[in-house]
Amino acid sequence: MYYPQTTFKNTTFHGPSLLKTTRETISKQTLYTQLDLLKSTGRYDCFKLEWHPKYDDNTNWPERKHLFWDCDIAKWIEAACYFLMEQYDARLDNAVQEIVGTISSAQQEDGYLNLHYQVVDPGARWTNLRDMHELYNAGHMIEAALSHHQYYHNDLFLGPIVKYVSLMRKTFGARENQIHGYPGHPEIELALLRLYSMTGNEDAYDLARYFLEERGNPSGVNGRHYFDVEAEERGDVPWKRPDAHPMAKSHQYSQAHEPILEQQTIEGHAVRAMYLLTGAADLLCLDKATVQPLGDLRHQWYDAIRRLWDNMVDKKLYLTGGIGAIKQWEGFGIDYFLPQGTDEGGCYAETCAAIGVVMLAERLLEVDLDSRYADMMELCLYNAILTSMSLDGNAFTYTNQLASSHQDKSTREEWFECACCPPNLARLFGSLGGYLWDYGGTKDGAYVNVHLYTTATLAFTIEGEEVIVKQSSAWPWEGKISFTIQAPPTLQLTLRLRVPEWAHGQFKLEPNHACSEQLEKGYIILPPSYTSYTPEFTLDIQGFQPRLIQPHPYTNQQVGAIARGPIVYCAEDIDNPWEHNHFKDVWIPSSTSFRQEWRRDVANKPHEHVAIHTSGYERSYPEWENKPAGTGPGLSVQTPKKISRLQRDLCFIPYYLRANRGGRGQMRVALPLEL
Amino acid sequence: MYYPQTTFKNTTFHGPSLLKTTRETISKQTLYTQLDLLKSTGRYDCFKLEWHPKYDDNTNWPERKHLFWDCDIAKWIEAACYFLMEQYDARLDNAVQEIVGTISSAQQEDGYLNLHYQVVDPGARWTNLRDMHELYNAGHMIEAALSHHQYYHNDLFLGPIVKYVSLMRKTFGARENQIHGYPGHPEIELALLRLYSMTGNEDAYDLARYFLEERGNPSGVNGRHYFDVEAEERGDVPWKRPDAHPMAKSHQYSQAHEPILEQQTIEGHAVRAMYLLTGAADLLCLDKATVQPLGDLRHQWYDAIRRLWDNMVDKKLYLTGGIGAIKQWEGFGIDYFLPQGTDEGGCYAETCAAIGVVMLAERLLEVDLDSRYADMMELCLYNAILTSMSLDGNAFTYTNQLASSHQDKSTREEWFECACCPPNLARLFGSLGGYLWDYGGTKDGAYVNVHLYTTATLAFTIEGEEVIVKQSSAWPWEGKISFTIQAPPTLQLTLRLRVPEWAHGQFKLEPNHACSEQLEKGYIILPPSYTSYTPEFTLDIQGFQPRLIQPHPYTNQQVGAIARGPIVYCAEDIDNPWEHNHFKDVWIPSSTSFRQEWRRDVANKPHEHVAIHTSGYERSYPEWENKPAGTGPGLSVQTPKKISRLQRDLCFIPYYLRANRGGRGQMRVALPLEL
Repeated sequence: MYYPQTTFKNTTFHGPSLLKTTRETISKQTLYTQLDLLKSTGRYDCFKLEWHPKYDDNTNWPERKHLFWDCDIAKWIEAACYFLMEQYDARLDNAVQEIVGTISSAQQEDGYLNLHYQVVDPGARWTNLRDMHELYNAGHMIEAALSHHQYYHNDLFLGPIVKYVSLMRKTFGARENQIHGYPGHPEIELALLRLYSMTGNEDAYDLARYFLEERGNPSGVNGRHYFDVEAEERGDVPWKRPDAHPMAKSHQYSQAHEPILEQQTIEGHAVRAMYLLTGAADLLCLDKATVQPLGDLRHQWYDAIRRLWDNMVDKKLYLTGGIGAIKQWEGFGIDYFLPQGTDEGGCYAETCAAIGVVMLAERLLEVDLDSRYADMMELCLYNAILTSMSLDGNAFTYTNQLASSHQDKSTREEWFECACCPPNLARLFGSLGGYLWDYGGTKDGAYVNVHLYTTATLAFTIEGEEVIVKQSSAWPWEGKISFTIQAPPTLQLTLRLRVPEWAHGQFKLEPNHACSEQLEKGYIILPPSYTSYTPEFTLDIQGFQPRLIQPHPYTNQQVGAIARGPIVYCAEDIDNPWEHNHFKDVWIPSSTSFRQEWRRDVANKPHEHVAIHTSGYERSYPEWENKPAGTGPGLSVQTPKKISRLQRDLCFIPYYLRANRGGRGQMRVALPLEL
Repeated sequence: MYYPQTTFKNTTFHGPSLLKTTRETISKQTLYTQLDLLKSTGRYDCFKLEWHPKYDDNTNWPERKHLFWDCDIAKWIEAACYFLMEQYDARLDNAVQEIVGTISSAQQEDGYLNLHYQVVDPGARWTNLRDMHELYNAGHMIEAALSHHQYYHNDLFLGPIVKYVSLMRKTFGARENQIHGYPGHPEIELALLRLYSMTGNEDAYDLARYFLEERGNPSGVNGRHYFDVEAEERGDVPWKRPDAHPMAKSHQYSQAHEPILEQQTIEGHAVRAMYLLTGAADLLCLDKATVQPLGDLRHQWYDAIRRLWDNMVDKKLYLTGGIGAIKQWEGFGIDYFLPQGTDEGGCYAETCAAIGVVMLAERLLEVDLDSRYADMMELCLYNAILTSMSLDGNAFTYTNQLASSHQDKSTREEWFECACCPPNLARLFGSLGGYLWDYGGTKDGAYVNVHLYTTATLAFTIEGEEVIVKQSSAWPWEGKISFTIQAPPTLQLTLRLRVPEWAHGQFKLEPNHACSEQLEKGYIILPPSYTSYTPEFTLDIQGFQPRLIQPHPYTNQQVGAIARGPIVYCAEDIDNPWEHNHFKDVWIPSSTSFRQEWRRDVANKPHEHVAIHTSGYERSYPEWENKPAGTGPGLSVQTPKKISRLQRDLCFIPYYLRANRGGRGQMRVALPLEL
């Protein structure tokens, strides 16, 4: 299998694009800002294993704030190495080397490595796999070490980490003298499988597979659930539980309510679910290469992942690609429970969860090349994810509501105590080239599958011969993409090009080719007979007129949102200064028409976008407002002609642009819709 | 002040009515069935203080099942005594005397009386006021003893209870050697104030007032919250908490998140909130009669109760009068969060909570005669409450959802482990006459305020002279009420008659009187000049045509329900046998018309009702159904003419009739509405 975290090196963002601009912001600004924050908050030096005043902070049991320091550092290292591979930067390079030095010097004799259990609570390691993020942190360390190894080509980080993996392999497993547990927060599974894929480390494969297979076992320890036994051994009764657990023994939060293969619906913590399923999908991707093939279990794993994917996408996903309505457990509500904001019942849509969707989608494209996965990858990337960082790269959102409210305005923060999202974004964009396309094969049958459009060049070799595929476009604003192919004339190269669902199969290929008329699972197939004789061609994907989209009627959201190409729009008070109630009362008729405005700002490139103007009206509810307080829950139905309304011009901007241009923090993606 | 539990004796249900039928069902059937269940489950004999196997059941910590046995018995005694006052019944009489005998013989030397702490956990009394329902049970014992005293005119029950109150008064209070606590489940406040009102027991008044004023104090014990300190003293960390507490220190469930006077919105457990506010309203009702008048605090208490009432009615009440959307804490969600059923996010609407609304409304009518309170009393009575018992009086609902779902069909149960609702219904209907009207004054200025219409006679004396007011009607099916008044000609009697909000001020008085044209807070005022010369008159209230009502637009419930007079309707599959998806896809146009059908069934009187026929259509969603699974959260907006629909004849019946006539448990109150 291939990993985008490896293959991205073959991609160059060669010309201007929204993705390139964002990557530059991250490399020129975000990584430095985050580095400064790592230093000022104590994270940078934490593996010197000295006491820090923060460790005394025991609010929010059991997730003490320093529990995430290991992974905050690890994700930053991972991101920094991706960008270093592209361009040397002395400051980043020095910092990575210094942190890695302290990490490796902190490792215990037997390989153990974890800030909390080495400094704050020594002697208690592996006693709370459910809550303490011990194995989660180990997972991010593995990923950081892999990235470090790719850049530095040495084992200064990977060596200690492999030793740690070896310790964990001995510690966890089905044997009697092993712990029959698994992490409350999955992550290490996908990290271990990446380690296995890159190094062949069988400890890593075995351990990941054990974690994946054992998870959720209701009778894993003497007929009981591991987390129940573990809690009991700590002296905790079932009713002692973290705030994120709504009920006693509600193991959904830890993705341990059922074994993965038995889960029918996606539940609990959204990030954990995505990381876990990405790991599970990796089992499938790696299957051919392992000594322990899944055999008959293969279709069961695929069915389970696919079933959970379908449940999520069809019933638990926001129009922006965000997942997770519920703040308490940062995760999924019941089917079709997708309120847009806090005042309607919640809208969490954590940045990291959307990143998790991208990771899972990318893996599923390897298992089954189907544009449904790439469509979702693109939806999340340009909307739920891109919206989480300010244009200047210095401020972030952790959650990504679709509508602001009096309680939760549309704003950004510079940093978070649990700072998972900002560096996660940085490592995703660092390796972004790997998500655009995949490639492989032999001279007799090579392929490039293009999932995302932008302006970029892919260069790789097949059996020693170089293949270069170049795409240039004004995506996501325009649908025309120019391709050039440079490949040896004898190479049997098949190019597959995604046609997004919202294009409804409408595209123009120039020069045309009969074979392109039949899409295969959403991809145009350009066979060797085309690619060999057509070094330059253009693909023009339709669907860049504004469209009105709505969620499923069972969501009880009688609303419509504006989308254009892959971009979902929102209204903000900065463009609609009359607004005062978070667009709660602003209705758009389903028959509304749109006017597009190219907003170009040469002085400030990242601000460029297509704004969309339309008209709607503000409804007022005099019959409700005039009802004396405390006099009954219902009113007689108003016929439409009696509804009080005021015509309004409306301006919408891309959702990712929100909270960048001032204003009063009033924003909404989908507005009430009058059919 | 007057209490309906006392004044009901002056009312006779003299002719057929839905209320009379229901009362007869309860007295002839329900009380016996419940008595049998008290016996078969062990409750009847529990105050013999022997061990029962149920006490070993420690699931569902900390609310062990026998915790409610004290109050189950007490409420049954209270109800039985109300009905005994109307008609002697040897079996009920014997049972009451026998249980009361065991209760009084169980009392400890110092007055203490509680099953759990006398049998199951002796020595631990008053250590968990938050969870153990100790003071709640004491409250119900007080109410039962008052009812017992009213019927038997002896102190066999009230005597021991007064002794218990005296012990509690010594135990709880502001002094240093007293416990600065209050019950997690309010009830005792209203019971103590009733005891004070009937007997002048000042211990009772003082204790109630202490509980009401101290509740929610964030710094009641050495600067800390009582429940936090109490939990700590039990050895519990904040994160050890019952399932009903969503988060650590979320004291909403115990109505202790803030002092009552500071609460801005109604939160937490709905029954607890209603009982608490009823007790608070009693403070106001009793104010003139006490030695400790509220003084300047009076308006603060009234403002607080009124503020919470308004928040509840305007933003947290279902169309049926049900309150409490959230199952986990049996209580309120955020403003406007009113999903109709489990598959939309919940609909708890506990029977006891609606009974609590009736109690609170009745008290507020005493403080401020305003039809908004009586309207709500009637809405709850005929809908949220009446729906909780089967027509045969043998089966019940605990929660009263507005729509069934695959997970929660519309069904009934014979009994509940926590059996609060069935006997609560019995005691409400036992004392129902007291809720119809109130009366008082002197010969120079007497009054009768009529809140509810039915067929009943009120007889009382003013300064030794008898006043009889008789109303006869086919309410709730028809609006015409015939009144006769018998009163001494010199009596200056003012009659006030409620005009329900849904009548929109439309009524006919025959003979007419100019004074009646101006309503005062929703009541027609018939002054002595009318009542003295008009011993017989009729009032004809309009509004008995079916009407379509809708909840506030912010509920995201784009639905309409049918109502007629005070009755809210629902659709059931028994009348609409084609239905298969709980009426989720059945739309009614806002312009729909109705046909009424009087369904009379002489063989089965309680079944009589007006059914309503209309037409709507089943929508199908082919565009959603045909969407390949897992391919994106939104679809382009469908214009109405493209929506697929199938015309359907629809039949609606009163909501209270649901789940009585067979069928597959499919039911919905409010259907999607097409404006």
